[in-house]
Amino acid sequence: MKQKNILLGHGSGGHLTHDLIESVFLKHFSNPTLNLLSDAALIDTEKGKIAYTTDSFVVDPLFFPGGDIGKLAIAGTVNDLAVQGASPAYLSAGFILEEGLSVETLEKVVQSMAEEAVNAGIQIVTGDTKVVERGKCDKIFINTSGIGFFDVNFSALGIEHIKVGDKILINGSIGDHGMAVMSARNQLNISSKIASDCACLNGLIDSLNEFKSQIRFMRDATRGGLATVSAELCKHQDFGIKLFEEKIPVDKGVRGICELLGFDPLYVANEGKVVMVVSNEISEQILDKMKKHTLGKSAAIIGEVTLANAGKCYLETQIGGNRIVDMLAGEQLPRIC
Amino acid sequence: MKQKNILLGHGSGGHLTHDLIESVFLKHFSNPTLNLLSDAALIDTEKGKIAYTTDSFVVDPLFFPGGDIGKLAIAGTVNDLAVQGASPAYLSAGFILEEGLSVETLEKVVQSMAEEAVNAGIQIVTGDTKVVERGKCDKIFINTSGIGFFDVNFSALGIEHIKVGDKILINGSIGDHGMAVMSARNQLNISSKIASDCACLNGLIDSLNEFKSQIRFMRDATRGGLATVSAELCKHQDFGIKLFEEKIPVDKGVRGICELLGFDPLYVANEGKVVMVVSNEISEQILDKMKKHTLGKSAAIIGEVTLANAGKCYLETQIGGNRIVDMLAGEQLPRIC
Repeated sequence: MKQKNILLGHGSGGHLTHDLIESVFLKHFSNPTLNLLSDAALIDTEKGKIAYTTDSFVVDPLFFPGGDIGKLAIAGTVNDLAVQGASPAYLSAGFILEEGLSVETLEKVVQSMAEEAVNAGIQIVTGDTKVVERGKCDKIFINTSGIGFFDVNFSALGIEHIKVGDKILINGSIGDHGMAVMSARNQLNISSKIASDCACLNGLIDSLNEFKSQIRFMRDATRGGLATVSAELCKHQDFGIKLFEEKIPVDKGVRGICELLGFDPLYVANEGKVVMVVSNEISEQILDKMKKHTLGKSAAIIGEVTLANAGKCYLETQIGGNRIVDMLAGEQLPRIC
Repeated sequence: MKQKNILLGHGSGGHLTHDLIESVFLKHFSNPTLNLLSDAALIDTEKGKIAYTTDSFVVDPLFFPGGDIGKLAIAGTVNDLAVQGASPAYLSAGFILEEGLSVETLEKVVQSMAEEAVNAGIQIVTGDTKVVERGKCDKIFINTSGIGFFDVNFSALGIEHIKVGDKILINGSIGDHGMAVMSARNQLNISSKIASDCACLNGLIDSLNEFKSQIRFMRDATRGGLATVSAELCKHQDFGIKLFEEKIPVDKGVRGICELLGFDPLYVANEGKVVMVVSNEISEQILDKMKKHTLGKSAAIIGEVTLANAGKCYLETQIGGNRIVDMLAGEQLPRIC
């Protein structure tokens, strides 16, 4: 690793995070399951396949338009399971609390988790609480892990199933979560209503069940945004990805605040967006079906898998140019989730 | 809840932790699996039973004689699965890192986790890293969750299997972990060598396989110590527990530092001690077998299940008196794990 000390960027989900994972975590923990670095580990047990994942949440502030750290902690883990094609079933919840935190605040967060758990149809079955001295953490950190199961007709998802000509779909506008947290953090007095897209995606994904043999790959575009997912997707592969800027849904308010503050929505975190690679033949049908779901109303086909530019992701801009889309390099918005 | 704000004692594992769990977490998350509050949740799936648990680790300092936060994070979760009679198999690891932490320190912790994972025969299959600004956490917090499986001959463990006359066993001396961390934290210049007992207990427990139908209940005596486990064990039950002070192994150095600092070893945390309730008939055989294992050399029968004093735990002191043993009331040693 180039750095001798941990930078905020090591938590960005981009290049620095990948460096850290490869040069510290994989170096010591290496095993075939972990090495895949998928959103959820797929474990083959004697009794069948299980999906297993974990995420810690340190979002600041705890509450923001459209969600809070509790809702996020459920949605983040549910989504990591769902994008692997698993049905999320059981979650764990580990709390690190700062001495002096108001119990009322904690209870609001816990209540929000409970509601989101009901929405997603999962159960929190095990937990843990630690308390650290005032000033040794920031109010509440939550870790959730989750277990999901596969039905018998499970068709494996994975980059290896992607074919040239496949289409890239997203279920709605990008950047909402990052900009909602940003606005709340800085108490920006913005008239346009920006709200986080924070949501459990397992219901939306379930609604596409009839097409699942035609879905090649899914990933939720969280830290690092759509850009990072797209760049990761084709890294070291024998295909490229082309995204069409004019097709990518961006909320007007989000676009405005991004321009104001100098953010590129492509890199801004989402918490309720799934990027899907699907077969070309059936992509319009999947899109239509997606649009019928509450969480897919603004769904769009935003790109395609190309033979050209293998290993690279290009954005065809609205003015007709092409620019390369790389993973997030530093840290754009620390503590976004 | 009586308190309006979170106190360090809410993380103690004693009365305050129980209050918080009941009045906030169970109030909102309530479900039959979680409500049992066992070390690991037992999940009945179509494909059989799974044990599932989580723990966050915030120990201060990160390194102490006999272990470090990494070893602890593996052992703590492995033990929570093992005491439910499960074979620990897969772990998740979620890191919250403080900006500025040296990568060398992180790597030492990760290496220690990797070594302990090999010792315990488990794999870390999924993980997550978050970074927070300097001063917003204390160097490294780790969450591990774990999944364990049961073999077909699994005989259920549980308080409901305990019978009057059963014996209480422990695999060695108490208080080592708490006092080792305490010494390291305060840089006490103590000549006696105190080391944490931090260890994965699944090997020891496996070595008792032939007796497993005679083992009624197991719990690892972590936060709150042997006293809290014993008091919890008989709370609201129709039996009591009697512990014999003179039978409880306490290391001489640990006893010395406890006396010096005013701690009761009964309440001091352990990280490699399992309390077992076993049938009277076979207790000596189990003890003999336990003593053959590296982690059971100082094992002892330290108490029994009584008809008298239902719901209460009594300690028969060395001078022949009796005193009631309750759960830890406040917080003795914050951030011990």
